Amino acid sequence: MGRTSDAKQKILGAARSLIEERGYTALGVAEICKAAGVPKGSFYYFFESKEALVLTVVDEHWADQQHDWARVLGGGADPLQRLRQLFEETEAAQRAGQQGCGTVSGCLFGNLTLELSNQTDAVRARLQEIFDAQVDMVEAVVAEAQERGDVSVTDTREAARAVVAQLEGQVMLAKLYNNTQRLTPLWGNCLALIGAC
Amino acid sequence: MGRTSDAKQKILGAARSLIEERGYTALGVAEICKAAGVPKGSFYYFFESKEALVLTVVDEHWADQQHDWARVLGGGADPLQRLRQLFEETEAAQRAGQQGCGTVSGCLFGNLTLELSNQTDAVRARLQEIFDAQVDMVEAVVAEAQERGDVSVTDTREAARAVVAQLEGQVMLAKLYNNTQRLTPLWGNCLALIGAC
Repeated sequence: MGRTSDAKQKILGAARSLIEERGYTALGVAEICKAAGVPKGSFYYFFESKEALVLTVVDEHWADQQHDWARVLGGGADPLQRLRQLFEETEAAQRAGQQGCGTVSGCLFGNLTLELSNQTDAVRARLQEIFDAQVDMVEAVVAEAQERGDVSVTDTREAARAVVAQLEGQVMLAKLYNNTQRLTPLWGNCLALIGAC
Repeated sequence: MGRTSDAKQKILGAARSLIEERGYTALGVAEICKAAGVPKGSFYYFFESKEALVLTVVDEHWADQQHDWARVLGGGADPLQRLRQLFEETEAAQRAGQQGCGTVSGCLFGNLTLELSNQTDAVRARLQEIFDAQVDMVEAVVAEAQERGDVSVTDTREAARAVVAQLEGQVMLAKLYNNTQRLTPLWGNCLALIGAC
């Protein structure tokens, strides 16, 4: 079992790196197996298809990110400080990624949204669930800040969507310009979008 | 000459539709020529490579969009009204696209940014120029509104970047959810980002 699950994790790790580098469409199963150092037969033992693989990559990445977001946004500090920390950790993660591979890889979910959403219903549905969950988490913090009188918004849902859209848009531009400093104004923009008092 | 340039325009039209539907990586030259109804030999008469084709598609799309943006943003109305019209026309264009092909196709430049920017330096450089030009155009209007005392921002460049990022982020989510109503809050979000008084 140990070796079997090693092979699965190697495939997932290689697939995630390759998808971040070059997108999903350009990849073939043979290339993923070569990068993972596992025989091609192993792939179909674990995954029915390339689509099943990308769904697993998405699920694992979201499990990690959801854990991080819950830790940061659910903490004890005041709600705006928690939201700020989310942006700081996002910037730090993109910077670490850039130092590791030379380029800003951006947001895996955003990348797949623009590459795949009109092609693969299963991936689209999963990405919708993830962005809904992100908006839920941000909305809870905005609502808390609103109750304390720290912000003033007419619609906490729309405000949370605007914050997530701003994050995705700025991460996209950070990727295009390969420049994580593009993310520094995120916090000020977020404060404006949620009507910080 | 008439027939020659017809073939080129057919290839460009087919390529643009196919790229909007399924992205760039998934496409082959043979498929583009089949959709365009031209023999494969024509392709290499007009384009050195698939990359040369995508650069021409990007340039033509930007020439059209730049013309529209200049018309709207350079108009005589007060600056905030012009900016508002830009968002309304963007929403209308996405709605028309959805009615035409069943799905929201999003922003061609954003789509290619997330699909290609880490792979093709020529495309990345072109997309950087386009987003710089978009930010220039928005910044000019924000600066004009600032001079009139209609908005209050500390950095017109950063404010314009935030507006373009918000537009890209919301268009991405409109594409993911195949729902152009996602674009309706754009104007309110823009006002917040540029500190409308």
